[in-house]
Amino acid sequence: MDNKLIYLDNAATSFPKPRKVIDRMVETYTRLGVSPGRGSYDLSMEAADLVFQTRQKLARFFGAPDPERVIFAANATDALNLAILGLVRPGDHVITTRLEHNSVLRPLFHLAKQSGIEYDLVGFDEHGYINLDEIASTIRSNTRLVICNHASNVLGTVQPVSDIARACVEREIPLLIDAAQSAGYVPIDMSKWNVNAIAFTGHKALLGPSGIGGLVLSPHLEIKSTRFGGTGIDSRTLIHTQTFPHRLEAGTLNLLGVFGLLAGLDYLENEDMERGHQKEMAMIKRLYEGLSLISRVVIHSPMLTEQDVPVLTCSVKGLSSEDVGAIMDGDYGIAVRTGLHCAPLVHVDLGTDTNGAIRFSLGRFNTNEDIDRALEAMDAISSGR
Amino acid sequence: MDNKLIYLDNAATSFPKPRKVIDRMVETYTRLGVSPGRGSYDLSMEAADLVFQTRQKLARFFGAPDPERVIFAANATDALNLAILGLVRPGDHVITTRLEHNSVLRPLFHLAKQSGIEYDLVGFDEHGYINLDEIASTIRSNTRLVICNHASNVLGTVQPVSDIARACVEREIPLLIDAAQSAGYVPIDMSKWNVNAIAFTGHKALLGPSGIGGLVLSPHLEIKSTRFGGTGIDSRTLIHTQTFPHRLEAGTLNLLGVFGLLAGLDYLENEDMERGHQKEMAMIKRLYEGLSLISRVVIHSPMLTEQDVPVLTCSVKGLSSEDVGAIMDGDYGIAVRTGLHCAPLVHVDLGTDTNGAIRFSLGRFNTNEDIDRALEAMDAISSGR
Repeated sequence: MDNKLIYLDNAATSFPKPRKVIDRMVETYTRLGVSPGRGSYDLSMEAADLVFQTRQKLARFFGAPDPERVIFAANATDALNLAILGLVRPGDHVITTRLEHNSVLRPLFHLAKQSGIEYDLVGFDEHGYINLDEIASTIRSNTRLVICNHASNVLGTVQPVSDIARACVEREIPLLIDAAQSAGYVPIDMSKWNVNAIAFTGHKALLGPSGIGGLVLSPHLEIKSTRFGGTGIDSRTLIHTQTFPHRLEAGTLNLLGVFGLLAGLDYLENEDMERGHQKEMAMIKRLYEGLSLISRVVIHSPMLTEQDVPVLTCSVKGLSSEDVGAIMDGDYGIAVRTGLHCAPLVHVDLGTDTNGAIRFSLGRFNTNEDIDRALEAMDAISSGR
Repeated sequence: MDNKLIYLDNAATSFPKPRKVIDRMVETYTRLGVSPGRGSYDLSMEAADLVFQTRQKLARFFGAPDPERVIFAANATDALNLAILGLVRPGDHVITTRLEHNSVLRPLFHLAKQSGIEYDLVGFDEHGYINLDEIASTIRSNTRLVICNHASNVLGTVQPVSDIARACVEREIPLLIDAAQSAGYVPIDMSKWNVNAIAFTGHKALLGPSGIGGLVLSPHLEIKSTRFGGTGIDSRTLIHTQTFPHRLEAGTLNLLGVFGLLAGLDYLENEDMERGHQKEMAMIKRLYEGLSLISRVVIHSPMLTEQDVPVLTCSVKGLSSEDVGAIMDGDYGIAVRTGLHCAPLVHVDLGTDTNGAIRFSLGRFNTNEDIDRALEAMDAISSGR
């Protein structure tokens, strides 16, 4: 990594990864990178054991009772596709929110066009929180699924999931949470919160590599396979294996990714996830306060609390967000993300859908100095200096 | 890796990986592991450039004209699902073979049950080659796709793809090839052979890591998206991006895997893929000849030629294949694969579907000494010593 780069795009992917995570991933893969559990040799069994240990660790991490219902996928989008396409049937109604990423909106849009499902989009208030009453009032007799963003990748707000779950539990409607932006920042407890499915990715705040994520399911949730292939068991039958986790997995597992994710989870455990998060939220507050003092900057995120994630979106009056991003990088060596962040409806509601916005998102390795340099750069750019 | 282990399960995954491949993958990911092409910063552009270079290299490797039609997927099964579910529509007829892996058979079985498609399975002769005439005679007016194994993961035979393509081209039926077991062993040229789609994986003979594979498409082939999400472009619309490669990709790319695959491709180029393959085929011949002399061993693979891949399947009369595999590992430190190898119909046709079989599959790092030790072990086990 270029020493001079200040990386503030951790909501896209955390970077750099802890050296310990990369080293341990490589060490484990070099030693055990065979086909897990499908060979009759010890090394294959040992690899399979470690995969299962990772499922157990993820189950504990997300407050899920059954490690066999921890499904590996390529990323959060992949996990959301597995969940949505596996849970929703023609004629169903789905409720989701205007805060969602295209990884939720696009599968639903496709199903609406192709399978005649219907969906409603619940809005959010000026503080970035979903209108809870609107969820309850939108439920119909054929509502099959509620899907909700846990942490917004544009605003940084974390939704009160257990409050949302309450409306669902009463009506026995499964609740699916997109935890792409929250897992690794804030604690998640699907049992306690009454959540039925959580999609996550490994390469953001969980500090693992790209290419690995997953879907965690509550016991008894009915879900169908939408991809088919070898699972290492039941090879005789042409019906895709229906036991979990195989029901939703097919082909050779991304063992390198699983070992990387395991290393990331262990790193977070040893390094105290909560303390890291507190530090990040103090830095995002420093950024918020600093940006508030720059006259041409308009902040779109609300003032966040310690329960949120370190994401802040803003614009500069009279300048295109893309240009600001390019100057931040070219002149100041600061990496931010501009555009719509694959969450177009949030930007429509913020009025930033034409110009996009500038997103700052923090991670473990950022410092107050990074924030101060970002503030200096934004001040200079806004003043036309 | 345990120094004493003799690894003969390369058809499951190549192991160990070349040190150079792992080192280069890690070096590149450590330097460039950001979100490719979605940030307005240089590092993101540089990562995107390297991803595109990998697509170009794969296009050249497979004889494909358009690098934008090189789609990344998690493995060959994933790529086959993208292809089959994206190409076949309700009411279509598909032709495939009894040599196929469950990664082809199970998606078709599912579609037959769910969408009313029909499929026919073409058999293979005693030399392990598909009955070419049967393909031509099985084509119907509604045949939409022919799917064919390139190299059998049970027999090691490589099919004459251009001969199979001839029957398809005449009738304008797309031909999809499963190159999971051939890519990295033998040359592939989809343009010259008139193939329309190739599914491959990175973690076998291409010597890359697990978690990355892909689908290479010929120009003009019509295929629909079956997964939906963010692509980094066209964020505004709720329709999944229809330009290639985005049409079939969604969510954050497995950049670690792409960099590993690139390192594997470069390694093969520098180390002379063809010479390595000749050496492997000489070793599999040595194994074949040695096993032929052991009275209780029944070899199911044909005598292979230099055009095939180094896979040999056999059984020991009177012993369960699973037991033989366990003794090979436990007493001799030799890793082989037993069972049905996720290709159940091949085993039905060989008469090995009850007992399974023992598969030896060779890779770059095997030696004649490995073969001799495997032969000694098989001799001792067969003799009850």
